[in-house]
Amino acid sequence: MKLCELAQRLALSWEGSADLEVHRLASLRNAGPGDLSFAVSAQHKQALIDTHATAVLVPPALADSAPCPTLICDSPYLAYASASWVLHPDPALVKPGIAATASVHADARVHESAAIGEFAVIDREAVVEAHAVIGAHCTVGAESRVGAHTALMPHVVVAHGCVLGEHCRVQSGAVIGSEGFGFAPSANGWQAIHQIGGVRVGSRVHIGANTTIDRGAMDDTEIADGVILDNQIQIAHNVKIGKNTAIAGCVGIAGSTVVGSSCQIGGACNIVGHLKITDGVVLNAASTITQSITEPGRYGSAVPLMPVSRWRRAYIAFSQLDGLMKRVRKLEQK
Amino acid sequence: MKLCELAQRLALSWEGSADLEVHRLASLRNAGPGDLSFAVSAQHKQALIDTHATAVLVPPALADSAPCPTLICDSPYLAYASASWVLHPDPALVKPGIAATASVHADARVHESAAIGEFAVIDREAVVEAHAVIGAHCTVGAESRVGAHTALMPHVVVAHGCVLGEHCRVQSGAVIGSEGFGFAPSANGWQAIHQIGGVRVGSRVHIGANTTIDRGAMDDTEIADGVILDNQIQIAHNVKIGKNTAIAGCVGIAGSTVVGSSCQIGGACNIVGHLKITDGVVLNAASTITQSITEPGRYGSAVPLMPVSRWRRAYIAFSQLDGLMKRVRKLEQK
Amino acid sequence: MKLCELAQRLALSWEGSADLEVHRLASLRNAGPGDLSFAVSAQHKQALIDTHATAVLVPPALADSAPCPTLICDSPYLAYASASWVLHPDPALVKPGIAATASVHADARVHESAAIGEFAVIDREAVVEAHAVIGAHCTVGAESRVGAHTALMPHVVVAHGCVLGEHCRVQSGAVIGSEGFGFAPSANGWQAIHQIGGVRVGSRVHIGANTTIDRGAMDDTEIADGVILDNQIQIAHNVKIGKNTAIAGCVGIAGSTVVGSSCQIGGACNIVGHLKITDGVVLNAASTITQSITEPGRYGSAVPLMPVSRWRRAYIAFSQLDGLMKRVRKLEQK
Repeated sequence: MKLCELAQRLALSWEGSADLEVHRLASLRNAGPGDLSFAVSAQHKQALIDTHATAVLVPPALADSAPCPTLICDSPYLAYASASWVLHPDPALVKPGIAATASVHADARVHESAAIGEFAVIDREAVVEAHAVIGAHCTVGAESRVGAHTALMPHVVVAHGCVLGEHCRVQSGAVIGSEGFGFAPSANGWQAIHQIGGVRVGSRVHIGANTTIDRGAMDDTEIADGVILDNQIQIAHNVKIGKNTAIAGCVGIAGSTVVGSSCQIGGACNIVGHLKITDGVVLNAASTITQSITEPGRYGSAVPLMPVSRWRRAYIAFSQLDGLMKRVRKLEQK
Repeated sequence: MKLCELAQRLALSWEGSADLEVHRLASLRNAGPGDLSFAVSAQHKQALIDTHATAVLVPPALADSAPCPTLICDSPYLAYASASWVLHPDPALVKPGIAATASVHADARVHESAAIGEFAVIDREAVVEAHAVIGAHCTVGAESRVGAHTALMPHVVVAHGCVLGEHCRVQSGAVIGSEGFGFAPSANGWQAIHQIGGVRVGSRVHIGANTTIDRGAMDDTEIADGVILDNQIQIAHNVKIGKNTAIAGCVGIAGSTVVGSSCQIGGACNIVGHLKITDGVVLNAASTITQSITEPGRYGSAVPLMPVSRWRRAYIAFSQLDGLMKRVRKLEQK
Repeated sequence: MKLCELAQRLALSWEGSADLEVHRLASLRNAGPGDLSFAVSAQHKQALIDTHATAVLVPPALADSAPCPTLICDSPYLAYASASWVLHPDPALVKPGIAATASVHADARVHESAAIGEFAVIDREAVVEAHAVIGAHCTVGAESRVGAHTALMPHVVVAHGCVLGEHCRVQSGAVIGSEGFGFAPSANGWQAIHQIGGVRVGSRVHIGANTTIDRGAMDDTEIADGVILDNQIQIAHNVKIGKNTAIAGCVGIAGSTVVGSSCQIGGACNIVGHLKITDGVVLNAASTITQSITEPGRYGSAVPLMPVSRWRRAYIAFSQLDGLMKRVRKLEQK
C-alpha cells in the first residue's frame, strides 16, 4: 500500500516521499524495507534515528528525527492500532456462507452475509446478524443472538438466551451463559438453583480466551459497550460491568458485584460478591477486593516478593503483627 | 401453574387464594402479575410489603406482611431453589436419542433414554446411562462412564477411564481426566510420568465452566457425592474432595491434597500440594494455604486493599517487618 | 512383561528372579502380585519392607531391604517415569489415518503416519508432521504446524500461523494463538490492536488443560524446548519462556515478560508485564512478582493463613503498618 493511500485511510498528514509502499508493521528495531513502524515518545528517539523502516508513525515533536518518510499523528500508538487492521487482513473475515459440515437449526436465522464455520451448531431460534462470523466448533444456543460484525473464534460456547451486540470479538474457549454457582443448603446437601437469567453483552466488547461469563440467577448478567476482557476471567452470575472498563487476565468477580465504567482492573485481581466498585477505579495486579470502593483512584493490596530467607521471617512477623501493635502501644504508654 | 398445585409439588402449606396462577420467578422488587417471589428474613420485610408478585414464599414470621397469597416454608431460599425447577423447564432436558451428526463407537453403550448432542463423540466401551444428556461437541473417552440423569453441557471433555455418578451437571469447557503435572527431573530435562489413574466423580456433583480435574498419577482423583465446584477451578492429580464441599471460582488445589467434607472454599484460594484440610473448614476468598488444617473453623489470609499512596508505604513497611520486630524487641529490653 | 526385558528397556541391572512378570505400576502400599513399584529414599524403607509388589525400582542403598526382586537405579523416580510408558500403553497413540468425520483442507498437508480425530479441522496450508496425533474436535489453523510425534488431546485450538515442535503434548481445552490483550485508548473507547505475531512452541513442551497462550502483537510469543506448563495458565502476548522452565497451575504471566530457563514457578503466581526473570529462579506458590528478578534463587510473597479472629486483627494491623513504622521510629528517638 502506498504511503499516501495509508495516510488517507488513517486521516493523517505525511512528510517525505508518499509513493513508497509499506506492507506490514514492525517495531523500530526489527523493521526493514517495506515495513511501517511507530515511535510514541522521546523515549524512542534513538531507536527512531536508527530504524530501517520504510516509514514511521510519529508525533510532531519526533518528525525531524526520522530517517524516513513519516505519518504525523497526535497519538502514534492509536494510529498504529488503526494501521494494524489496514495493513494486515483480519483472519476472522472469512467468506460468507454456512460450512457444509455446520448444523443450523431450521428455526434459526442466519444472515446471508454471515459466515458459519465447520461443525458449528446454531440452535433453535438463534439469530446470527449481518457479517457476523461464527468459528469452527462454536455453539450458539437456542434463542441467542450474535450481533452484526461480531466474530466468534473457534470453540466458543454461547448458551441459550444470551445476546451479544455488534462488533464484538470473542476468543476461543470462552463460555458465555454457563450456569452460575447458585445453591441453597439443605439437609441433603446443596440444592441447585435453576439459573433462569441470561447474559447481555453490549457492542465492541472483547472477550478473551477461556473466559467464562455466567448467566444470571433471575435477571441478566450484563457487560456494557466497549468493555474489554482478557483471558481466563471469571464473571459470576448477575455481575454488571460498566462501559469501557478493561479487565486483565485471570481476574475473578463473584456474584452480583457491580463494576463501574472506565475502570482498569489488573491481572489476577479477585473481587468478592455483592460489592459496588465506582467508575474510574484502577486496581493494581493481584489485588483482593473485599469491600465496595466508592472513590475513583488507584488501589493495591499485593505484598512484596522477597528472597525466601527474608520472606520466612516476614511471614512469621506478619503472623505476630497483632501482638506487635500491642507491644508498641505498651512501649508508648511508658 | 396453580398455586395449590405448586404448593403440593413443594410440600408446603399456603395462605390466600390458591387458584391464582404463577408462571415464573422474580425478585420481590421486579415481580409483577404471574410472578412468584420469595422473602428470606425480616431484612426483606419492606420489599415484601411493596411487592407486586402474585405469590411469595415466606417464613411463618413474615406471612402476615405479604400483600398477596403466600406459601409458608421454613427455608424460603431452599423453597425458591426447588420452585425454580418446577416453574422453569430445564434447558438441558432434551429429547432422548442420538443426533445424526454424533459419533458413537460401535462398542459404546448408550441408554435409549439418554440424549447425545450434535458432533458429540462417545468412544470405545464408554457407557452413557439412562436419562443422561451429552451436549453438542462433548467427548466421552474410552471406557468412561456417565451416570444416570447426569448432564454435560456443550463442549465438555471426559477423557478415557473416568467415571461420573448420577445427577451431576457439568458446565461447558470443563475437562475431566486431563493428564496431570507429573514429571521427573533428568539430565535431559523433564521426563513426563504417564498418568495412569482416572477420575472418579460421585453423584449430585456440579462442575463449573472451564474447570479442570486431572486424572490420578497412579490411583484415581476423587470428587465425592454432593461436591459443588464453580468455574475455572483447577484440581490436580490425586486430589480428594470430601462430600458436600463447596468450592468457589478460580481456586487451585495442587497434587495429592485431601480436602474434607462440608468445607467451603472461597474464590481464588490456592492450596498447595500434599496437604490435609479437615472437615468443616471455611476459607475466606483469596487465601493461600501452605500447611494442613486440622481444626474446623473459618480462616483467612488476604491483606487489605488501600489507596495506592498508602499501599506503597505499607508495601515498604512489610518488606521491613522482620527488622521492625527486632527494633521493638530492643526497645522493650531498654 | 518379564523383569529382565523391562530392565533391558530401562537399561538397569537387576537382583532376584528376572523371569517374573510385571504388568502395571502401583505404589508400595497398594501394590500386589504383577505390580512394579518404586522406593525413592530411606523415607520409604518401611513401606518397601512391607510391600507386596512383584518387583521394585530401588536405589542401591535400599536394595537389601526389598522383599522381592529389584531393578537398581540411581534415580528410582526417573526410572518409574520411564517404566510408566513401557508398562502402560499411551492412550494418545491411536491408529494413523484421518477420521471420516474430520475436515482437512485440500491445501493442508498431513503425514500418512499422523492421526486426525473425529470432527477435527485442519485448515488451509496447515502441516501435521509424522506420527503427530490430533484429537477429536481439535482445530489447527491456517499455516500452522504440528511437529512430529506431538499429540493434541481432544478440544485443543491451535490458531493460524502457530508452530509446535516435536514430541509436545497438549491437554484438552488449551488455546494456542488467541489474540492478546492489546488496545489503544481513544476518544471512542478502546481500539483493538491487530495481533499479527504468532506463537512458537519448541519441542518436548507440555501444555496443560485450558491453558492459553496468546499470539504476539508483532513478533512471536515463544515457549522454548522442554518447558512444562500445567493447567489454567495464562501466557500473554510476546512472553518468552526459557528452556526447561516448569510452571504450575493457575499462573498468569502478563505481556512481554521474559522468563529465563530452568525456572520453577509455583502455582497461582502472578507476574506482571515487561519484566525479566533470570535463569534458575524458583517462586513459591501464590507469589506476586512486580519487579524483575536478576538473581537466581528461591522467592516468596504469600502471607500466612490464620483463624479468622486473629486474621481480622492482623488485617487491621497491616492497614496501620505505615503508622506503626513511624511510631517505632519515634520511640527509638526518645
